[in-house]
Amino acid sequence: MTTIEVKTTTANYAVKVKIGSLMNVAQAIKTVWTPRRIALITDTTVGALYADQVQTQLMAGGFAVTVLTVPTGEASKSWTQTMRLVEALSQAHFTRNDGVVGDLAGFVASIYMRGIRLIQLPTSLLAQVDSSVGGKTALDLPTGKNLVGSFYQPDLVLIDPQTLTTLPQRMLVEGYGEVVKCAALVGGDFWELLQSIQQPDDILLFAPQLIARSVSFKAQIVRADEKEGGQRQLLNFGHTIGHAVELLGQGKWMHGEAVAMGLVAVCRVFEAQGLTPVGTANAIAARLAVVGLPTELPDLALSTVLEAMRHDKKVHGDQLTWVYLTALGQPQLQPVPLTDLAAWVAPVLNAAA
Amino acid sequence: MTTIEVKTTTANYAVKVKIGSLMNVAQAIKTVWTPRRIALITDTTVGALYADQVQTQLMAGGFAVTVLTVPTGEASKSWTQTMRLVEALSQAHFTRNDGVVGDLAGFVASIYMRGIRLIQLPTSLLAQVDSSVGGKTALDLPTGKNLVGSFYQPDLVLIDPQTLTTLPQRMLVEGYGEVVKCAALVGGDFWELLQSIQQPDDILLFAPQLIARSVSFKAQIVRADEKEGGQRQLLNFGHTIGHAVELLGQGKWMHGEAVAMGLVAVCRVFEAQGLTPVGTANAIAARLAVVGLPTELPDLALSTVLEAMRHDKKVHGDQLTWVYLTALGQPQLQPVPLTDLAAWVAPVLNAAA
Repeated sequence: MTTIEVKTTTANYAVKVKIGSLMNVAQAIKTVWTPRRIALITDTTVGALYADQVQTQLMAGGFAVTVLTVPTGEASKSWTQTMRLVEALSQAHFTRNDGVVGDLAGFVASIYMRGIRLIQLPTSLLAQVDSSVGGKTALDLPTGKNLVGSFYQPDLVLIDPQTLTTLPQRMLVEGYGEVVKCAALVGGDFWELLQSIQQPDDILLFAPQLIARSVSFKAQIVRADEKEGGQRQLLNFGHTIGHAVELLGQGKWMHGEAVAMGLVAVCRVFEAQGLTPVGTANAIAARLAVVGLPTELPDLALSTVLEAMRHDKKVHGDQLTWVYLTALGQPQLQPVPLTDLAAWVAPVLNAAA
Repeated sequence: MTTIEVKTTTANYAVKVKIGSLMNVAQAIKTVWTPRRIALITDTTVGALYADQVQTQLMAGGFAVTVLTVPTGEASKSWTQTMRLVEALSQAHFTRNDGVVGDLAGFVASIYMRGIRLIQLPTSLLAQVDSSVGGKTALDLPTGKNLVGSFYQPDLVLIDPQTLTTLPQRMLVEGYGEVVKCAALVGGDFWELLQSIQQPDDILLFAPQLIARSVSFKAQIVRADEKEGGQRQLLNFGHTIGHAVELLGQGKWMHGEAVAMGLVAVCRVFEAQGLTPVGTANAIAARLAVVGLPTELPDLALSTVLEAMRHDKKVHGDQLTWVYLTALGQPQLQPVPLTDLAAWVAPVLNAAA
């Protein structure tokens, strides 16, 4: 088992990575929680695979369990589902000392009675390497993804790489897109480790290391900067163009796929500016391509890409802050005036169109 | 001007109490905010009185202002209004560095893009002495008041006692109920100051002192205990029975009126237990009665009161923690098993019925 300690200004907690740990979840939870009422919040897909076993274990461990299930998919990150979950907690008379377990429920846990305790059991690679650390919770609005949310730290994150064996290959591979992002930001041994991944199944083989490395990096960033200020912006590497691609694709691209395209595109943008060494984009593209991740942007009109970027949360005043590499493992921040965006982005789009 | 510094584990900010300060709001806001977009969130009643003037000043001060108005009343503390406000911010392209000003908007500010900056301009006595300090935000659910919310600290709280002159007398007086609660918890000079209040108009005369004393006390509590753990529970004095009365009254009693009844009732409960000196309930009732606040509980069935108490947020496990006085200015916490509640509460209800 690998244990990564996450320390923020508001909370300290552990991320534990252990094969088979979901089958001993009660034992892990008992290290941080006394017996209490627990809501197990999951989606229809993951719930069908694991909810019964987890509930049985928790009950045997002395916890009272209410299972709450939302439909699988991004559409459940809605006001409607939030309201439904909050009202279910209220009707079950949950009090402030009770808890929520799951990987979809951070926002609900953060607002019900101004916050009840939370443990995360992420079961997808994307959730394990990306959303499990950092305390970000979110809902989507018609006007944009993740426009509503909170910063809310769990008491424990328990990651069982075994759950990846039931993940559809496309979802396994999309999570690997975020792993490549982390490895490119960290460089060194972590970047070298990616040489071992030559096909999608290799991700399963190396999952414990890939997850532990990614989580350790993210924990280090979150420790330095709990909210999104300086260091934490580094995690947006590949996300500026990536988010635009994801938004404009209207569901065609999964998050990790859009990030994969965004990683290669941002390197090309900064290679053209002479700020990233030529060849970096191709080196990253090679690591993404072996598992089948897309590396070339789809045809997109410059005006729609720019419009999507202008509403990005990374816009501060009249500038959009980009993350680029001066070398693998050497990220930098570069604020670009909104008025210059077209000139920076257009060459990359033309190359793709 | 009185300035009270509030320090919590997550933020430091000032509460400024100054007559006429709402007419110089831009100046005060400039001490904490650079020019940015501001959403001025208010209700129909307060907005009609002040929104134009505040907007004009803010715009003259270099801020871009969007005024968002919700209907006056508790019914606006709803998912529907929250969603409407969040979507209005999104459609106006507010980013994370923009801000929200108002006394109804803390929850919206805390969840839009995981938190935008917030300044409170409370215009009712209840908001000035009670909800302006402590960072609690809340929504109501069909199953109970304030069941959803967050802890979220503002950058500044600006209190203009002049706004109390436009407050209906019943609302002025209900706010005074919370002032009496604070004075009873603090004792000494603060309690003596209440001797000066012999009729509702005296509240206006002494408003700056009453507000400053109440806010200072609350700031001291919040500093020791940002979330509701130990010290902060003291602020629940009078609220255990008070909340039940408010809930069961279904809108008949304003919050401060229910608290007034709850203050007297809890003293009677603890006088009967021999834990509060006999005469305390009458001393508090006298201070409340001179301004016309109710001091005797309405007729309530024991079973409905107990049911309301069992769902109280102050229930931890099988106990409900009460606040009582060993003397004026000497509060204590007393956990009471839920199974004993009936025996503690019944005598007070019988006396009132």
